[in-house]
Amino acid sequence: MSWQATILTLFPEMFPGPLGLSLAGKALGGGVWSCQTHDLRQHGLGRHRAVDDTPFGGGAGMVIRADVVDAALSAIQAPEGAPRVFLTPRGRPLRQQDVSRYAQGPGVVLLCGRFEGVDERVLEARGIEQVSIGDYVLSGGETAALVLLDACVRLLPGVMGSDESGVEESFSDGLLEYPHYTRPASWDGRDVPEVLLSGNHAAIAAWRQKQAEEITRERRPDLWSAWLDRRERNEAAAGRSGQSGRTGV
Amino acid sequence: MSWQATILTLFPEMFPGPLGLSLAGKALGGGVWSCQTHDLRQHGLGRHRAVDDTPFGGGAGMVIRADVVDAALSAIQAPEGAPRVFLTPRGRPLRQQDVSRYAQGPGVVLLCGRFEGVDERVLEARGIEQVSIGDYVLSGGETAALVLLDACVRLLPGVMGSDESGVEESFSDGLLEYPHYTRPASWDGRDVPEVLLSGNHAAIAAWRQKQAEEITRERRPDLWSAWLDRRERNEAAAGRSGQSGRTGV
Repeated sequence: MSWQATILTLFPEMFPGPLGLSLAGKALGGGVWSCQTHDLRQHGLGRHRAVDDTPFGGGAGMVIRADVVDAALSAIQAPEGAPRVFLTPRGRPLRQQDVSRYAQGPGVVLLCGRFEGVDERVLEARGIEQVSIGDYVLSGGETAALVLLDACVRLLPGVMGSDESGVEESFSDGLLEYPHYTRPASWDGRDVPEVLLSGNHAAIAAWRQKQAEEITRERRPDLWSAWLDRRERNEAAAGRSGQSGRTGV
Repeated sequence: MSWQATILTLFPEMFPGPLGLSLAGKALGGGVWSCQTHDLRQHGLGRHRAVDDTPFGGGAGMVIRADVVDAALSAIQAPEGAPRVFLTPRGRPLRQQDVSRYAQGPGVVLLCGRFEGVDERVLEARGIEQVSIGDYVLSGGETAALVLLDACVRLLPGVMGSDESGVEESFSDGLLEYPHYTRPASWDGRDVPEVLLSGNHAAIAAWRQKQAEEITRERRPDLWSAWLDRRERNEAAAGRSGQSGRTGV
């Protein structure tokens, strides 16, 4: 069974878009995954097929109706157990471990909003996770859905060549990756750091670890302090088990 | 002058993609912004037009060469003062205030990586900002570039209708937005919160503020603690100025 992406959107023609090309496109053509769109407009009301209405309590913008989203959810055929995800800046931040979980399941159902948002009741009643790809505002959920799918599809079996398997390391140890260098060794008056040409694997690993730590501290104080906490806990645990060993407990 | 997006990529056919439709597409057709792609492959070396090479120091993956990126940068015509941005999970996180800054400028030059990354020297030498759209790994920078452009384009003058102007509020006060509800008032046994039907604007505003605070506390401990710090500082500042008033200083 191929991994199934089902997308509820007012712009079905945006998919697969960029994911119809490159690695994701080859995997789509090869049946590793499928991309099915469902137009919310089909379930709109009245002559104009309205999907939205003004918010209760006042305020700018329009809100997509609960009954419209619900009718669309009933009309699709998504695999059992596929998580339902609404892409919104109000959601829990998407992390690599979520991507990994989605990729290991049967697929995902993605709800793309437009306008001000979606009626909260249908999100609650139909078990739809609210997920944010970052702290910025988009014109709709569609480009966010493309990002989420891109991240998932590259993890599906057979999609990435062995050349790219190393990329995973970026978040696996909680640090940003060290900088990369390739030929030429000297470019525009700038030389590659000497250690990388030394052939000394231990020295290279130590240099890269130090770079990863420095870059993380500088660019991501949040990841850095979480990493320090983890290291401290690990050292404390190692200390305790060492003591246990000595006292024979 | 229209706002100019210039994209350096190995997949120029991915653009404008979803941004050729909907609001962004209308704005593109109307000349509010332009989207120019430049194929990195044009500057590749040898018969196969290679753009990448193995990393110095060893490791999985391939690294895009500094000289290739530099040749592409020299070949494009980007407006003076347009920031150069490399999309990478190693970057500083993209925030709504960055989007706003980009949208107010003449445009952006976006460098989309593939493979393991780009030679660090060209990023340093050519003043290329490293920006991350979130803590997950993509197959390349292209879907991230679409997200960044989507976020920018909707802020350009004339792109959003007045209907959507309220969306901005999501991050403006540092809290996630309150939940939205629209007709029908009762759906699937779930009623809209009564206060929203009360017509009491002060009560509605208070309810929404409380909801925004609760959702932020629950979903985004990071934003919540920053918001609490800010509130405390503001209260302290208000207290000081109040005292100054009383003592006549």
